[in-house]
Amino acid sequence: MNTTSIKVEGMTCGHCKSAVEGALGKLSGVGKAEVDLSANEVSVEYEEDKVTVEEMNEAIEDQGYDVVK
Amino acid sequence: MNTTSIKVEGMTCGHCKSAVEGALGKLSGVGKAEVDLSANEVSVEYEEDKVTVEEMNEAIEDQGYDVVK
Repeated sequence: MNTTSIKVEGMTCGHCKSAVEGALGKLSGVGKAEVDLSANEVSVEYEEDKVTVEEMNEAIEDQGYDVVK
Repeated sequence: MNTTSIKVEGMTCGHCKSAVEGALGKLSGVGKAEVDLSANEVSVEYEEDKVTVEEMNEAIEDQGYDVVK
């Protein structure tokens, strides 16, 4: 397992937290995703041979949030 | 149909808007509910012989928001 921290703009509430964590959790290869609302950040545990950071970014953006790259 | 405007604290995003509108829409006697996020307010059309403002307030609070009374 690898861990990465992705900066995300626009997450404001518990629903946003659930939307982002849920979208990441559906990706094959993602172990745990945890949003820190006050830090505008999501911490993700993943298997780098199964899923890329780019795929995670896309999953977040598909929920309507901006990833800070 | 009557119309009332309810002040609500804590609605921040589209998910919050959907949660509040959805909860009100499920009440029998509520016609249309529309959240204005920037005004922290929800406008509700309802039949006053079928549903009370108190019931609407409770439905909003059940979603985790504070009604300003």
